[in-house]
Amino acid sequence: MSSKPFSVLITGTSRGLGLEMVKQFAETQRPLSMLFSCCLDPANSEELQDLAKKHPDIIKVLRMDVADPDSIKQAAVQVGSLLGQSGLNLIINNATIAVYTPFLKSSPEDSTVTKPINIIHNFPSPGVLSSSTGHSGMSGMSCRKAAVINISSNLSSNDWIGLDCQFFNEIVLYDKLPMVPYRASKAALNMITSCASLELQKEELLCSLLHPGWVRTNMGGEYCIQGMIHLMNSMTDEHHGALVNYKGQTIPW
Amino acid sequence: MSSKPFSVLITGTSRGLGLEMVKQFAETQRPLSMLFSCCLDPANSEELQDLAKKHPDIIKVLRMDVADPDSIKQAAVQVGSLLGQSGLNLIINNATIAVYTPFLKSSPEDSTVTKPINIIHNFPSPGVLSSSTGHSGMSGMSCRKAAVINISSNLSSNDWIGLDCQFFNEIVLYDKLPMVPYRASKAALNMITSCASLELQKEELLCSLLHPGWVRTNMGGEYCIQGMIHLMNSMTDEHHGALVNYKGQTIPW
Ligand SMILES: NC(=O)c1ccc[n+]([C@@H]2O[C@H](COP(=O)([O-])OP(=O)(O)OC[C@H]3O[C@@H](n4cnc5c(N)ncnc54)[C@H](OP(=O)(O)O)[C@@H]3O)[C@@H](O)[C@H]2O)c1
Ligand SMILES: NC(=O)c1ccc[n+]([C@@H]2O[C@H](COP(=O)([O-])OP(=O)(O)OC[C@H]3O[C@@H](n4cnc5c(N)ncnc54)[C@H](OP(=O)(O)O)[C@@H]3O)[C@@H](O)[C@H]2O)c1
Repeated sequence: MSSKPFSVLITGTSRGLGLEMVKQFAETQRPLSMLFSCCLDPANSEELQDLAKKHPDIIKVLRMDVADPDSIKQAAVQVGSLLGQSGLNLIINNATIAVYTPFLKSSPEDSTVTKPINIIHNFPSPGVLSSSTGHSGMSGMSCRKAAVINISSNLSSNDWIGLDCQFFNEIVLYDKLPMVPYRASKAALNMITSCASLELQKEELLCSLLHPGWVRTNMGGEYCIQGMIHLMNSMTDEHHGALVNYKGQTIPW
Repeated sequence: MSSKPFSVLITGTSRGLGLEMVKQFAETQRPLSMLFSCCLDPANSEELQDLAKKHPDIIKVLRMDVADPDSIKQAAVQVGSLLGQSGLNLIINNATIAVYTPFLKSSPEDSTVTKPINIIHNFPSPGVLSSSTGHSGMSGMSCRKAAVINISSNLSSNDWIGLDCQFFNEIVLYDKLPMVPYRASKAALNMITSCASLELQKEELLCSLLHPGWVRTNMGGEYCIQGMIHLMNSMTDEHHGALVNYKGQTIPW
């Protein structure tokens, strides 16, 4: 682990895996200069606010609706001014709306597919992310240098359609987790990330997809997040463009 | 080939492969009771209107904007009243907007991903498609009984990212055809179709993805369309849920 300054931005941190990531980053990752914890409604995100009070120098809670380009731009400006000269190292696109509807019950409005484009696009523009790469003095790609990690799902993979999937200790078939708009939006996210990885390679900006494993997030996802943070700390060029699970295994899609 | 009545609906038929499909269906496919040729702007689709004049009993030109649910509903009502008791057998979702922009230049507005959900959803609802399956007396799934064929692309497949792709006689790399919003929307279309195929199986409604091959459509795509129509005529349960090219080869994605 490097001793350079390290700053992270995570979306969708009011609850679930996003909240748990903020907690574990703040408690276990050093050095950590700033942790931008973005959520829809900071005033009503009590657990997050409590956490921020414990780590006032590190955690900055910001409002960001990932579906609203203006809100992203505003957050980007705030991040830029808080960071000053130093760049942002790691963006974790975690926010999601899990739409459970099957094909026959879903409608075009269910689609959440444009959101990941939004956030990725607005962040490099004020230079916060890209400014990290040039001056780091580190060789190769890594999350401590400059990275965008998009949280995907094994349900984005055609290999999982109609196949068994381990959800806790249950075997889950398509009928139980149809989630068609969710699957479609994650498939599109995978494709966008894969393309982005080709374009961002020359800037040495690591771009990967992470499947956190299946957890009932209201019961806590400590174990997954431990694995994910460990993985992010050890990611290199070989993970660029790939979909990997929290154990580091590549998932074909 | 069966001698039962056979009716087809194709979207995006003002030009390109859609127009060529209408031409070849009308000229070579018998029996063919009705061919609904849907396009954005019938009054300004001269080639299509000329074709319709040659086959006035078969070709019905309808206005349909696949991005506008109301326009789809209106077309569905017209189709229903023209068909009367008999059902629609085959829907070909062909309309597309080919967005060529790379990741770094694309924006959320480029996304065309919701459109295929739109059209598939509005059509079974007036019963036009689903009414074909029950009374056909045919066993197994087929395009002559009841089918939705979604036109996809090999660019929807992660296997093609950064790999070579034969476009005419050229080798085309990612740099030449980045088409990120297009790839993402086709990846989502694949996922939606794959899910739909699981849900529509019990109604014996064939659901497949077709890659037409790469053609400069303003130079005519006769050869591709010959292959595609031949393939659609011979499709069975084994193609259900799969992405196949116009030669009938399965493309992994
Ligand atoms: N949990 C699993 O088993 C599992 C499995 C595979 C993949 N994943 C992925 O892991 C990530 C986290 O999942 P999770 O289970 O923690 O989800 P979750 O419990 O449903 O939490 C989703 C979070 O996203 C936020 N959010 C939703 N829409 C937003 C918007 N427009 N702008 C900003 N924030 C928004 C929510 O905020 P509000 O509280 O304000 O609604 C919430 O904080 C997701 O990308 C998910 O697809 C999870
Ligand atoms: N050509 C290839 O080499 C190739 C390769 C792989 C896949 N494909 C797929 O094959 C299909 C046909 O491609 P093509 O090359 O023939 O495309 P094209 O020449 O660009 O024609 C697209 C057609 O879609 C119509 N359209 C666009 N937006 C529409 C909307 N909102 N509502 C209704 N119609 C709309 C256009 O109408 P207007 O004339 O009014 O704009 C036009 O008729 C597409 O699904 C494409 O993705 C083509």
